[in-house]
Amino acid sequence: MKKLVFKVEDLKIFVEGFLRKLGVPAEDARIAADVIVSADLRGVDSHGIIRLNTYYGSRLRKGSIDPTSKLKVIQETATTLAIDGMNGLGQVTAFNTMQKCIEKARSAGVAFATVRNSNHYGIAGYYAMMALQHDMIGISFTNSQPLVAPTYGRTAMLGTNPIAVAVPSGKELPYVLDMATSIVPIGRITVYEKSKQKIPEGWGINSDGCVTSDPAAVLLGGALMPLGGTDIMRGYKGYGLALLVEIFCGVLAGASFGPGVGNPGDTHRTADVGHFFAAVRVDAFRALDDFKEDMDRLISQLKDAPKALGQDRIFIHGEKEFELTKKYSESGIPLLENVVEDLRRDASEIGLDFDLTPINEITP
Amino acid sequence: MKKLVFKVEDLKIFVEGFLRKLGVPAEDARIAADVIVSADLRGVDSHGIIRLNTYYGSRLRKGSIDPTSKLKVIQETATTLAIDGMNGLGQVTAFNTMQKCIEKARSAGVAFATVRNSNHYGIAGYYAMMALQHDMIGISFTNSQPLVAPTYGRTAMLGTNPIAVAVPSGKELPYVLDMATSIVPIGRITVYEKSKQKIPEGWGINSDGCVTSDPAAVLLGGALMPLGGTDIMRGYKGYGLALLVEIFCGVLAGASFGPGVGNPGDTHRTADVGHFFAAVRVDAFRALDDFKEDMDRLISQLKDAPKALGQDRIFIHGEKEFELTKKYSESGIPLLENVVEDLRRDASEIGLDFDLTPINEITP
Repeated sequence: MKKLVFKVEDLKIFVEGFLRKLGVPAEDARIAADVIVSADLRGVDSHGIIRLNTYYGSRLRKGSIDPTSKLKVIQETATTLAIDGMNGLGQVTAFNTMQKCIEKARSAGVAFATVRNSNHYGIAGYYAMMALQHDMIGISFTNSQPLVAPTYGRTAMLGTNPIAVAVPSGKELPYVLDMATSIVPIGRITVYEKSKQKIPEGWGINSDGCVTSDPAAVLLGGALMPLGGTDIMRGYKGYGLALLVEIFCGVLAGASFGPGVGNPGDTHRTADVGHFFAAVRVDAFRALDDFKEDMDRLISQLKDAPKALGQDRIFIHGEKEFELTKKYSESGIPLLENVVEDLRRDASEIGLDFDLTPINEITP
Repeated sequence: MKKLVFKVEDLKIFVEGFLRKLGVPAEDARIAADVIVSADLRGVDSHGIIRLNTYYGSRLRKGSIDPTSKLKVIQETATTLAIDGMNGLGQVTAFNTMQKCIEKARSAGVAFATVRNSNHYGIAGYYAMMALQHDMIGISFTNSQPLVAPTYGRTAMLGTNPIAVAVPSGKELPYVLDMATSIVPIGRITVYEKSKQKIPEGWGINSDGCVTSDPAAVLLGGALMPLGGTDIMRGYKGYGLALLVEIFCGVLAGASFGPGVGNPGDTHRTADVGHFFAAVRVDAFRALDDFKEDMDRLISQLKDAPKALGQDRIFIHGEKEFELTKKYSESGIPLLENVVEDLRRDASEIGLDFDLTPINEITP
């Protein structure tokens, strides 16, 4: 299918306008638009503009996300912060919480923040990366609707619960881990199902809890497998990481957890998603320059290490995404023609014109 | 092979005496003995009494671990602690650092500590679990000698770098994740090699960087694979977690990292291992009772979830180890006869009698 290429700034302005039209205050709309388009910039389409209406627009219209709510501080110390997101946009609550967390870490060295009663917040890595410009390490977790089965289980009990950690470096690009704790996201299974392809054995289970190569069986009553997959490959470690995120974001934050977390596509109820954030000053532990020099050294050692047969490059986490961001910032973000059609329809439904002009076209 | 069963307390007294004989002060020997025998109690034999001479005794005798050194605080705030282990026993440095970390968290809510210039510290979970009795979440990472290849690499560049997190609960057992970020430890490969069995495809690579089922190929110039394994199963996530631990324990702590970390079995050099610890007060975020109630609820939901075909139980992380600890505390710890012979020989070499009487025997 043909792709239409749009300027990053144009897309941000469109998303911002879309959210404002649905009652989101200007500054909040700007924050959310930046997070959403950043997902497309980093190549994480599944959390980008494609979700604008299903995850956010439809919920704002139905009142299952409150466009004007302000987060509420429930409990606070010099190093900790427990926040109630008051069912506002996940991006806005997360951005504001991470900023507070960074402020606290600036004085205290380390700070942790939890958020309850929030919504899908887009890419976890965005908030972790906010720490980088302050020469801090940033951490961001969120729980999400149940899609992953525990080891030896047959039903979805935990979210794909991402772990994101960003660490500053010197000359090299920063390390940015942003990983779901399942092997693949559910969207990947859908892609295989739509194209009538088998999935690799280990990505998911059927409704009996058995590994299957049939994507439809995963989608209909089955579940995703946690990182590691089967028992023999130590899938209980991925299950343990998913559970860790559920504990920090659900239990510690006082949000919903496990099967209780709402689906972002379900407009009939609030989602009560929980998040967790941390910021850590590097220079609380050693001189910043020494740290950055060693980060660069570790990164080069890995990149220069001997490659496996048939491979010519070893990557550091975040590297591919930085390269894509650079490319798209220069040449624009390509969107599938049907995605653009959907945006046009969603916009017109709320009385907004989709008046963006593509700067390029890519025909397959 | 026959197993001899010893009382837990007897084994601790033996290990303590062994370390004291090599110049370790009484209190430090007691701490290290408790950590070492705890590994056996939890069923992690590979980090237990079997390593007493190779990892610790031989190094103490050769002077590549300093038996009497005291840790040095390099940098300190109300929430952070950067420690130089001064090449002392890893267990003693880690125990004392985690205690300080817990003290700081008691006042500040959250505390982080790094350690450089340390040694193999045994099971990561021990230090994370120290937080439990204080109603805190405990975290413990360590780096270790290179055994794991980065995705698309062919040589060992990162340690098996464990992640341990312990979270208190109410009536249920606490959650204790204690996982290497490789799929399996190197000892598991050795077991297959000795018994001339093939390893499951994905555990390790040969010297070309290709997945192999030959354990000898992994041991001779190959490497372990990170959690997840191959690219298609998202092994770069496990690689990312191993790298995360390397960054916190090597780079942030100012210890050695990557190929620079010493092997605990190599008596010719100091190991300069790095550790990372954190302690978090649960009640800084919400009422402790509510937290514990929700932990119990999440744990029961998982345990009560429908089981996969052929399975009758879903486990929570740490559960098997708690059950084993209970069993061994009551009926004693079984050691293979040849392990006991080795201990007897190691003891006699330093002029110590191995005068323990087994309380039972298990014949296969």
